[in-house]
Amino acid sequence: MTISLSTIKVERDNHVIFAKIAAPPMNMIGPELIADFVTLVQYAEASDVRVVVFSSEDPDFFIPHVDLTKVKEYRHEASKLVGEASIGLLFRRISQAKFVSIAQIEGRVRGAGSEFVLACDMRFAARETAVFAQIEAMFGLIPGAGAVQHLARLMGRGRALEVMLSAEDFNADLAEKYGWINRALPKSELPDFVSTLARRIAVFPMEGLQDIRESCNAIALGGEDAFRRDSELFGSGVMRPGTQQRVKAAMEAGLQTRGGEITMDRIFSELGKL
Amino acid sequence: MTISLSTIKVERDNHVIFAKIAAPPMNMIGPELIADFVTLVQYAEASDVRVVVFSSEDPDFFIPHVDLTKVKEYRHEASKLVGEASIGLLFRRISQAKFVSIAQIEGRVRGAGSEFVLACDMRFAARETAVFAQIEAMFGLIPGAGAVQHLARLMGRGRALEVMLSAEDFNADLAEKYGWINRALPKSELPDFVSTLARRIAVFPMEGLQDIRESCNAIALGGEDAFRRDSELFGSGVMRPGTQQRVKAAMEAGLQTRGGEITMDRIFSELGKL
Amino acid sequence: MTISLSTIKVERDNHVIFAKIAAPPMNMIGPELIADFVTLVQYAEASDVRVVVFSSEDPDFFIPHVDLTKVKEYRHEASKLVGEASIGLLFRRISQAKFVSIAQIEGRVRGAGSEFVLACDMRFAARETAVFAQIEAMFGLIPGAGAVQHLARLMGRGRALEVMLSAEDFNADLAEKYGWINRALPKSELPDFVSTLARRIAVFPMEGLQDIRESCNAIALGGEDAFRRDSELFGSGVMRPGTQQRVKAAMEAGLQTRGGEITMDRIFSELGKL
Repeated sequence: MTISLSTIKVERDNHVIFAKIAAPPMNMIGPELIADFVTLVQYAEASDVRVVVFSSEDPDFFIPHVDLTKVKEYRHEASKLVGEASIGLLFRRISQAKFVSIAQIEGRVRGAGSEFVLACDMRFAARETAVFAQIEAMFGLIPGAGAVQHLARLMGRGRALEVMLSAEDFNADLAEKYGWINRALPKSELPDFVSTLARRIAVFPMEGLQDIRESCNAIALGGEDAFRRDSELFGSGVMRPGTQQRVKAAMEAGLQTRGGEITMDRIFSELGKL
Repeated sequence: MTISLSTIKVERDNHVIFAKIAAPPMNMIGPELIADFVTLVQYAEASDVRVVVFSSEDPDFFIPHVDLTKVKEYRHEASKLVGEASIGLLFRRISQAKFVSIAQIEGRVRGAGSEFVLACDMRFAARETAVFAQIEAMFGLIPGAGAVQHLARLMGRGRALEVMLSAEDFNADLAEKYGWINRALPKSELPDFVSTLARRIAVFPMEGLQDIRESCNAIALGGEDAFRRDSELFGSGVMRPGTQQRVKAAMEAGLQTRGGEITMDRIFSELGKL
Repeated sequence: MTISLSTIKVERDNHVIFAKIAAPPMNMIGPELIADFVTLVQYAEASDVRVVVFSSEDPDFFIPHVDLTKVKEYRHEASKLVGEASIGLLFRRISQAKFVSIAQIEGRVRGAGSEFVLACDMRFAARETAVFAQIEAMFGLIPGAGAVQHLARLMGRGRALEVMLSAEDFNADLAEKYGWINRALPKSELPDFVSTLARRIAVFPMEGLQDIRESCNAIALGGEDAFRRDSELFGSGVMRPGTQQRVKAAMEAGLQTRGGEITMDRIFSELGKL
């Protein structure tokens, strides 16, 4: 059984899959990447894969956020696995998958990029390069793919509200302090740390790993209805004229271009003028 | 539309209100301050205010705690907004207000002072001067205005119990480590940090801010019944002869005087003799 | 009223009990230690004890974990207090006891040793010597005595999964960062810090301490059914042939010997070969 994906490079080593996201120009979430996530989940669950490590081929971007011009398209791809047009429910499905998932983060994870890594079982990030943000508030939106559900539980009400209401960038050290990630590590040590951890877990019997994950999810994973509600609020919000106007202004200021996405400063400035 | 309060100095800057508590001699919670909180909430919600920043004019005291000689009176003022004589329910109402609330903390926040800042959406404190405590256990009381509800969720069972059972003072760095506050900042940087954050949030559309806060509250804000129960336990506890005796002894040792409230050491010593 | 135990040295000082676990060769959980926990709870609750401090006479081991050859026997002792053969339910009963419990940790706490300290109201550990682990996944097991319930709430989903799926050792500083313990302290300061804290709490009236603990438990202590379910999953899992084989191999590699338990490295290596 083999697997061939257009936006993820997959290497398999016994019970571990190393999945490197490689969707130029900047790993934005579109229908291709979501389709590949679906295929990868199906492949891993049909085999004896115990751990999947997600990383990025692009040193500047892990996943910047969704392609705001393709909301309908990527949502449709998610429905092929979860029966509903919601990447929040797709990501939640990954939290409940048969395999353990680890995010190895270099570069930017904003919006649904952050929500994808939040859905993984664990998150380790490069201290020098990782950047985290939930930028939805800039556009008058709630994060729709699970950020509220995860951040409120991981870091508590005060810090979760700061993150989501401010739409600010957080570096890896602050993300670690707030509990957004498990740990920040020097970039040079990150790949070895994660692969050692993945291989260590992969020698343990499946039964225990599954019992632990199910019991932990029963406590700490938000309910399907709550994920669905956030997803619907995002979906209806994105259609509002005010939001459409802000998305347009942000695009003109560089949103969804590498240059514009490096700091987001110019985009924030332009939105402040509206 | 203007607003004039006796214990809070209000400055309005577009969508932001800067509310500086100024209730000499030490910002203790009494009927006047609670009445002003009620008026301020009503004013802000009737206007297009998006963010309210709370700070203190007194560098040594943000809010020390309630005036234990006026429990009935300040509770009555709270009832004018929430229909029940409970500042816990009033503070919870602030957590659900239409505006975002940020506490900018210098000096002491103990007892219901801490519970007020816990009700705010975010808390930032001066590393050199902020002091946090829940002192109720000294008097044989449970914190009645939300501390249990917030601290258990923000810092977990072990640390919340340490805070509330010990009645100890915590400095800003330890409060940050435990999750009591978002962050400790140098006193010199605190006002700029907070006002920049407030103005940043205030340019984002209300719809997104509201959706985020409602979804987050559904997860991380304790239920009304639980707040009410803690409030009633405090209210009945404060009438116990043993508690009345301890309050009297504490008053004689300096409780509710600036000198006595600086360290609380002498008060703790006197209570230890009972 | 006096108390005499075979595996715990008890000193009483007014409202505080200092309980030093002394169960050579290494404080492993067997029927004797569980029987003594039961007796101590009954004694403390029948008297006016307000705080119990648990420490270890063995500088290398607080509690290493359960004696895997005596699961049935120690479970039976737990049933004498809680009516069910589950140390998870016994530990949960300690979380709800009339007295405040504080763990003063030097040396190793792994498996149910960690679960015992997690059941205590607070945990303080020696920075230089304390070691924490949930090793159950190595054997294909879920932690059965409350770790999932406590860790998921104390540190959030990501870090709790890392701890339990990896079965790695954590030192005191990392345990503090993750919220596993209240604080790591220099070994030389730990006993004074804890006894000062215990004596401070013990002068406060019982009513307030009880109200605080009950309200906090209602939020942050997992339900009885969830503890029972984890306990049953452990109990059935330990009977699986695969688990029995791994336990046997681990025993041969030094499990349940002081040498083998110091680092667990050789045990992990041997299990990796299965």
